[in-house]
Order: sequence, then structure tokens, then C-alpha cells
Amino acid sequence: MPVLSQKAIQMPPSPIRKLVPYSEKAKSQGKHVIHLNIGQPDIETPQVARDAVINSDIHVLEYSHSAGIASYREGLTHYYKQYGIDITADDIIITTGGSEALLFAFFVCLNPGDEVIIPEPFYANYNGFAVAAGINVVPVTATIDNGFALPPIAEIEKKITPKTKAILICNPGNPTGYLYSREELEQLSSIITAHDLFLFADEVYREFCYDGARPFSVMNLDGLDNNVVLVDSVSKRYSMCGARIGALISKNKEIVSSALKFGQARLSPPTYAQIAAEAALKTPQSYFDQVTHEYVARRNMLVEGLNGIKGVRCPMPKGAFYCIAEFPVEDTEHFCQWLLESFDYEGNTVMMAPLSGFYATKGLGKKEARLAYVLERKEIELAVKCLEKALEVYPHTTY
Amino acid sequence: MPVLSQKAIQMPPSPIRKLVPYSEKAKSQGKHVIHLNIGQPDIETPQVARDAVINSDIHVLEYSHSAGIASYREGLTHYYKQYGIDITADDIIITTGGSEALLFAFFVCLNPGDEVIIPEPFYANYNGFAVAAGINVVPVTATIDNGFALPPIAEIEKKITPKTKAILICNPGNPTGYLYSREELEQLSSIITAHDLFLFADEVYREFCYDGARPFSVMNLDGLDNNVVLVDSVSKRYSMCGARIGALISKNKEIVSSALKFGQARLSPPTYAQIAAEAALKTPQSYFDQVTHEYVARRNMLVEGLNGIKGVRCPMPKGAFYCIAEFPVEDTEHFCQWLLESFDYEGNTVMMAPLSGFYATKGLGKKEARLAYVLERKEIELAVKCLEKALEVYPHTTY
Repeated sequence: MPVLSQKAIQMPPSPIRKLVPYSEKAKSQGKHVIHLNIGQPDIETPQVARDAVINSDIHVLEYSHSAGIASYREGLTHYYKQYGIDITADDIIITTGGSEALLFAFFVCLNPGDEVIIPEPFYANYNGFAVAAGINVVPVTATIDNGFALPPIAEIEKKITPKTKAILICNPGNPTGYLYSREELEQLSSIITAHDLFLFADEVYREFCYDGARPFSVMNLDGLDNNVVLVDSVSKRYSMCGARIGALISKNKEIVSSALKFGQARLSPPTYAQIAAEAALKTPQSYFDQVTHEYVARRNMLVEGLNGIKGVRCPMPKGAFYCIAEFPVEDTEHFCQWLLESFDYEGNTVMMAPLSGFYATKGLGKKEARLAYVLERKEIELAVKCLEKALEVYPHTTY
Repeated sequence: MPVLSQKAIQMPPSPIRKLVPYSEKAKSQGKHVIHLNIGQPDIETPQVARDAVINSDIHVLEYSHSAGIASYREGLTHYYKQYGIDITADDIIITTGGSEALLFAFFVCLNPGDEVIIPEPFYANYNGFAVAAGINVVPVTATIDNGFALPPIAEIEKKITPKTKAILICNPGNPTGYLYSREELEQLSSIITAHDLFLFADEVYREFCYDGARPFSVMNLDGLDNNVVLVDSVSKRYSMCGARIGALISKNKEIVSSALKFGQARLSPPTYAQIAAEAALKTPQSYFDQVTHEYVARRNMLVEGLNGIKGVRCPMPKGAFYCIAEFPVEDTEHFCQWLLESFDYEGNTVMMAPLSGFYATKGLGKKEARLAYVLERKEIELAVKCLEKALEVYPHTTY
């Protein structure tokens, strides 16, 4: 039998899915598992998007243009204008999810063995795309003590080596929920320029900013047109994760034309999903207002609830729909598994994502877990109750 | 400005798209361009597939399982059974097009710098996936003299080096239309075993076999369960290229579990498209009978027409919907461009794909072009007429 590749061996399993066998077993035993482990919202996809697919009059389901349907890309330029992002349709390549946009960015900008600096904890699948592209992730650690703000610029700069080609950020952040300020991004900009790096920004949670905060995009940083690649997606914006429509956006024409060659090799992004995404551009503001209102209520309930539990602390996130909590336990991997295997509160238990898989530095995040507040409030209330009760009986609670 | 990667530079532009600016210009001048350059059929997508999407009652367009919707994978096992391919749902990963399946296979089985042997001419996008994975394509040349049959096994074996990890075939072949016989595949099997290689087979044209020929799948080769990866797609089978649904299939459990990790990183294949693809499994046999009948008529008209033109030869393909013709010209790149720029017959002209981009060996295919018989017969008849007239006036015709 021939031997598999190094990439096959290095490829990390998804930390979010590691506990799935335990949740399956818990459910088979009749437990109600409250899924706060994954970012799959229960929010309805906008009617206008679903209707566009239902009313589509397609006879031959053809390839679209490799860069995406032209009218959709044109429509997106107006969407971005609302956020002060001034681009043309030629600056956009529609991708199969934000995932493909980041993979293309890695392929186009980094050679195998090159390094990308990422503040940790970070979205765990970045590791997978790095392995696929043969590049190395260099973490710079953010801390729960300041709600996972951007690490000091001096700390980031220390990580720069001759192999460093890019910095990758997620803003608003998954898993942190932290929203980088304009000032933080301008600091980052200074080292991007000084070291002539690429800046990749995953801004797929742009619509999820709370308490009056406005997102500031890397596309609005001065003088970085040749350095910036924006990774975007409709998955969260319109609660249409299953569409698999994202975008790679850059004003660097060489990046876009090179990424398009990778896009041509895979022919086109999915057609039905592009129809839905294009129609979703007409989603009324009232939809977003309702969604934001709902997420703020869920966030407040969850974060306040968690901070009310003895020994637990959880910074209040300003964006996305995740929070990170620190628990009075030695190891959240064990605690999360125990919650599924050995605990229930009146038949209910909670599934969370242990945070160690979101750090590249070994040993970090052992007391932390990510919770996605993507479920309705009565589920969140129950989840908080479960966690409180669980810590009272968990054999390794450290308070 | 930071420098792009080697991959960005090496990534070949799609040879099928090189002439697009000329066809756009021809159309803007009012010419009717008969597109025989790409494999985008005009055949309707089965009603049952389109209806499933139109009637879908989705409220939240969620991620599917990373390996694809379970009931769809289960349904596929019955589809494969018709072809004597005995697999379980666990042997299947649904991918975003056949493209992603091949990319996953490259990632999982080959290290950067490893070699994959491919009979040439081959589907040009294989080059793109090879660049993405950092592997090297080693061609072994097939010839128009025997209709692009599998090159002699001794020739293939000569190409094997310590870096060789796999052989990739496309059967029925794009761009050749050649259908490998069971005997040819068994010969290939012997060197796969002898040198412990992977065998990747792109069988996306399985339904397009003519003159009573039956396709023989690499999945049916004895003793190769650990070596074979089948790359499949619904794009051609149901004329739903825009769905972007394919599959990676292997009985080697390590390959499947490793590929699934790459699948998890990109979350899931598109949901609407999977609904269409699952429903398409119920496509009645009458659909395939009609399609085959139509393609045979188109093929016969095109191939007989081409062979009737002075100086042109075109082997009769047994599968897929392409043929390769040799023209009495020095360079089909120039001839194809000239057809768009400087020729018309009563306002009509033809777009073909020059074949040199389908060879990895420089200098080959200069007299050859690929024609896709994906348009209705009256268009094909007109295309043949155009080509006949064109060769009479082309300044570089060599007869």
C-alpha cells in the first residue's frame, strides 16, 4: 500500500468535531444536547434569497463565469459602498465559501515554507488551509485579560522573520468576538508597510457588531492597496452557511488575476447559491436590525449568565456571535467531554468547543472554551443553568 | 509591493479561455460564433433535479455534513451498483465538483515535488491542480494515429522514477474521447501494483459511451482497493455543470479519512446543489437514452464531416463528447484565432480549443484542436461547413 502524503498526516482534525461522537452518544441516550459548539445559526435565511432559488427558471444548470456571475459582482460593489469600501467588480472573485478565498490567497501570495502570522486563538480551519498550501502558521498570543485585543505591535513585530510573508486577522473575531478598533488596525498597517507584507482579513462577521460599534475594514487602510486581501462570505451575513459563497477581494490586480487562474482551474462557484447570494443583496435593513437585536439579547444573556457562575469569566464581545469563557477546570477538553458523557441537568447538557484547538501554541487555552450564541434565548438560559450545575458536581472543578 | 508566490507565476492560464477575448470581439462585430471550444452542453438538466430545488422547503440554508448529505451518499451507492461498483456510503466524500476531488487526492497522496504520470493530451486543468499541490506532471504521449489509445505500458513504465507516486487517467477521455478497454486498464493495473502507486481515475464521462461500449471502472480492477481513487462529478452526467457537485471515492479508508479532514476545513459542499444531485439519482433511463442518441448523432455528423474536409483527420471517439481533429495547418493556435478574427462564412465562424495547451510536452499538438459536440446538429453542420470554407482561404493551409 502506497504511503500517504505529509499533508495527510499533518492535517489537523477539526477541533470542533472531535467531540461529535460523544454528542451523538449523548443524544442516543435521550439527552438534550444544547449545541453551542458550532457557528451554525438558527436564524432564517432571508426570504428574498430563498425565493430567488425557488423561482429560478433554469433549464440548463450551467457553469457561471469563474470569477462569479457578473451582475452579482456588480451588485456587491454597492453592498461594500455602504461600508465605505470603494471597489469595482473587477476587484472581486466569487469563491466557494470564504474558505476557498483564503486558500487562493495562500496559494497566490505565499511559497511553501513561508510564514503567516496570526493572532491566537484563531479560527481553527486556518490550520487546514495552511497545511494544504504548505505554509507555516506563526501565532502571536492574545489574552482573555483584555478580551483578546490585538497583541502589542512590538510582540507581533518580534515574530517577523525573513520567511514572513503575511499577517492574517479575523475581524470581528472568531472565536474571540473581539472587534479590532481603527487604531489597532492602523498600528498593524504600520508593520505591514514597514516589512512589505500581505495583510489578509477575514471579515465575514462584518454585520455582527454590537453596542453601536461600526466595523472598520482593512480595505479602508491608507496606502495598503497592494497588500490587502479581503476574505468574505455570505454564510453568516444572511445565515446561509450551506450556500458556500464567498469572495476574494483586492485592489492588487496581480493578486486578483492570479487568483482567477486558480478559479478557472476549478471552473466556477456554485450557480444556485450565487442566485441566492445575489438576491440576498436586496435583504431589507429590518432583517439585519432584527437579527442584531436578537444576537445582542442572546449575547447578554449568555455572557452575563456565565460571569454569574462561580469561577467563570467571560469578556463581553463586541462582534461576531461567539464568546470565550474561562472555566474553573484544569482542562476544558476533559470538561466538555464529561458534559456529554457523564452529566445532565434534568436531561439537558451543553456542547462547547474546547479552546486549545484554536491556539497554535501548545498548552494554551486549557481552561477556555468557545460558545456560539446561535440558539434561541431559552436554550441559552438552560445552557447557563447546566454549566452552573455541572461545575458544582464536576470532579475536577478547581474553585 | 510584496512579491507573489511561485505558484501564482507557474499557474497556467486556461488554454480554453485564451481565445475568449477574440470570440468576444467577433461577437461584438455581429459574427455568430459556434462554440465548440468548451464542454458546456446545451442539454437540459433533468426536470426531477430542478424540481427538487424549486420545491425545497429550506428555512435555514445550513452547512451539510462535510462528507456530503448522508442520504445522497447512500443513494449514490445504488447508482454505482448499476456499474458493478460495490461501495458503501463511507467510501464516498461529496466534493465541490470533480475539481475538488482531484485536488484532495493530490493533497492526500502526493508530497510537493512528487510526480504524477498522465497520458497526454489531458484535461488542461490537471496542470492547475498540480501547481496548487506543488507536484509535477510527467506526461506520456498518446497519438492520434491510434485514436489516443493508452500508450504502451513499457512507455509508461519508463517514466517511473523514485518520485513517481501516482498515475492519473481520464476515462472516457477529455479531450480525446477515447474509452480505455478493460485490457488496457488491466495492463495499467500491473504497473500500479508492481511499483505500489496510486491510480487516480477521472470517470466523469461514464454515461457517455457509444456504439454499445460499456465503461469499465478502475474500481473494478482486482487487488487495487488501496491504490485507487475515483474522481467523479454530476456536471456532465446530468448536464448540471453549475451545480459543482463531485465525489472522491476510495476503498482505502486512510485516503477517505484524510480527505475528509480537508473536507472539514472547507466545511461542506453546497447544499442546494446536493439537493439537486440527490434528486437527479431518480433521472429516468429514457433521459440518458435520449441524450446518448443525440450525442451519437452529433458525433457522427461532426466526425464524418471533419473527415470529409480535405487534409483533416479525426478519429471516431467512443466516449465523452469531444473529438480531436488534425488540421492541415502549421499551428492551430493561430488558425483558431484567425477563425475568430479574420474569417466568417455567411456571418458564422467556429471556436475550437487549440490542443497544444492539453499537452505537457512542448511543441506537441500544434496541428490539433479539440471540438466539443455539445450543440445541436444544425450548429454542428454549420461548423463543419465553416471549417471547410476556412481552410480554403486560410493563408497558412498546408495542403
